[in-house]
Amino acid sequence: MSLLVVGTMAFDALETPFGKVDRIIGGSGTYLAWAASNFTRDINMVSIVGGDFPKEEVEALEARGVNFDGLEVIPDGKSFFWSGRYHMDMNTRDTLVTDLNVLAQFDPKLPESYRNSEFLMLGNLAPSVQISVINQMAKRPKLIVMDTMNFWMSVALDDLKQLLTMVDVLMVNDSEARELSGEYSIVKAAVKIQEMGPKYVIIKKGEHGALLFHGKSVFYAPALPLEDVFDPTGAGDTFAGGFIGHIARTRDISFNNMKTAIIVGSTMASYCVEKFGPTRLQEVNQEDVQARMDEFVELVNFDIGLVHA
Amino acid sequence: MSLLVVGTMAFDALETPFGKVDRIIGGSGTYLAWAASNFTRDINMVSIVGGDFPKEEVEALEARGVNFDGLEVIPDGKSFFWSGRYHMDMNTRDTLVTDLNVLAQFDPKLPESYRNSEFLMLGNLAPSVQISVINQMAKRPKLIVMDTMNFWMSVALDDLKQLLTMVDVLMVNDSEARELSGEYSIVKAAVKIQEMGPKYVIIKKGEHGALLFHGKSVFYAPALPLEDVFDPTGAGDTFAGGFIGHIARTRDISFNNMKTAIIVGSTMASYCVEKFGPTRLQEVNQEDVQARMDEFVELVNFDIGLVHA
Repeated sequence: MSLLVVGTMAFDALETPFGKVDRIIGGSGTYLAWAASNFTRDINMVSIVGGDFPKEEVEALEARGVNFDGLEVIPDGKSFFWSGRYHMDMNTRDTLVTDLNVLAQFDPKLPESYRNSEFLMLGNLAPSVQISVINQMAKRPKLIVMDTMNFWMSVALDDLKQLLTMVDVLMVNDSEARELSGEYSIVKAAVKIQEMGPKYVIIKKGEHGALLFHGKSVFYAPALPLEDVFDPTGAGDTFAGGFIGHIARTRDISFNNMKTAIIVGSTMASYCVEKFGPTRLQEVNQEDVQARMDEFVELVNFDIGLVHA
Repeated sequence: MSLLVVGTMAFDALETPFGKVDRIIGGSGTYLAWAASNFTRDINMVSIVGGDFPKEEVEALEARGVNFDGLEVIPDGKSFFWSGRYHMDMNTRDTLVTDLNVLAQFDPKLPESYRNSEFLMLGNLAPSVQISVINQMAKRPKLIVMDTMNFWMSVALDDLKQLLTMVDVLMVNDSEARELSGEYSIVKAAVKIQEMGPKYVIIKKGEHGALLFHGKSVFYAPALPLEDVFDPTGAGDTFAGGFIGHIARTRDISFNNMKTAIIVGSTMASYCVEKFGPTRLQEVNQEDVQARMDEFVELVNFDIGLVHA
């Protein structure tokens, strides 16, 4: 039941209404792995870092069952760096700096041992890189999930469109779904995106929750109402990590199980935002996760019988 | 099990990305009554209109069990008029015109037969008017629900604060909750508002659903994802009408039943936005309502067991 995860391992500098950090560990791959490793201990990571990336960060994930045979280290290179500032509403942010560094030369070669991975999670990267990973698989994974962002819709739309025909699940936020589909209505956007390839579309709305669309079926998972969202960085990747981690653990790719996987993803994301960077994710244990899953049940549970006299 | 409803009956001019209407029936009382009359046929309306308000509109509601002994008609006055333009996201709008007209002199005198109503729904009006209605009740209603808006926080905050100590449930949207509490976090806002009086706080988030807070309990009702939101005017009042209609029908003011009432309110609101004005609300029947309630169950229902191996 191995899970292949492709994503960045990087440094972030962040500014939120609650504080500021200059250089902390980040990257989609980092968040994906921390979240997914709560559910499966057979994770194959594909990423690239410079000589500046701390070994302890890699070792901490190895201790949780993450395999790094697919990690390329460029000793004299610098790791990917991203810097951003969040607005008061925490749903919008400005990118201040994007230094690709070693990411500019990322052309992953999958280790032989990775090529039969059963599940594939493609973190947000250039669509050409995501396609290359799929093409290197020895057999088609049971489920391919991809994340992307609006940047690729501007600079690599053809690649992105090709990629969409190759995956099962697309995860995007609401504005990305609108841009990709050209539809303002989220419902119509999901229909159009399914016509582009992925039969399952997950639209993330931050503090407003997430929607799963598949044919005529829709599932709406609220986000847990939190007193403070301290730092939303990585929440989307963490959501994806919880989602694919649950799928890999259960090996069940039905719509019903995807609904549960979304609640698992939302649970992990709700922890992620409580502290800067992946700190909080590194602290939570299985009891914490189960406790918050139970909160989700309470949050949405209602009785309904016949509503008329 | 009578329900007393106080609100405006008015004319609206609306502009949305989908079209424009110059003069249609509107007003919080109108929407409240159409929605609530799906669930209870013992509604006492308090409102004021000018000689220009169509008799047929009143008669159509009378046919649904709404009593108009408390409707003041000023033959040579003009009814309240509001005009607004919605932005593309349909969650924000600009007010273009507000002509109070007869509403400026609204000082409701409750008919004797209204004073023992069991439930009270105070639509958005000057807090002094809302207070006056409560003070005219012969006995304290089983549940008092109030709506308000940010305008009153600017011009009548003292009255509003007094009113808050007199009611059980406050319904506001997220930006109003933030303004009233001075807290950005919705969770903290709900705590502060409860300290101001109402033990139940319902925060409406439009297409992102609604939250019910009571002590440490929270319930999150998503909005039904709709292909098109044609006209959101009155959706909040319709939500309130469905909510209080269900409470009045069941006479159960428990937190659990309020959760169901919120789904009923969301159901009615989801119909309201499908056409301009209250048109769609006037068409739906009990089967439609039940069918959409069932969609809500499907929408949020998920399985969860132990999420670890």
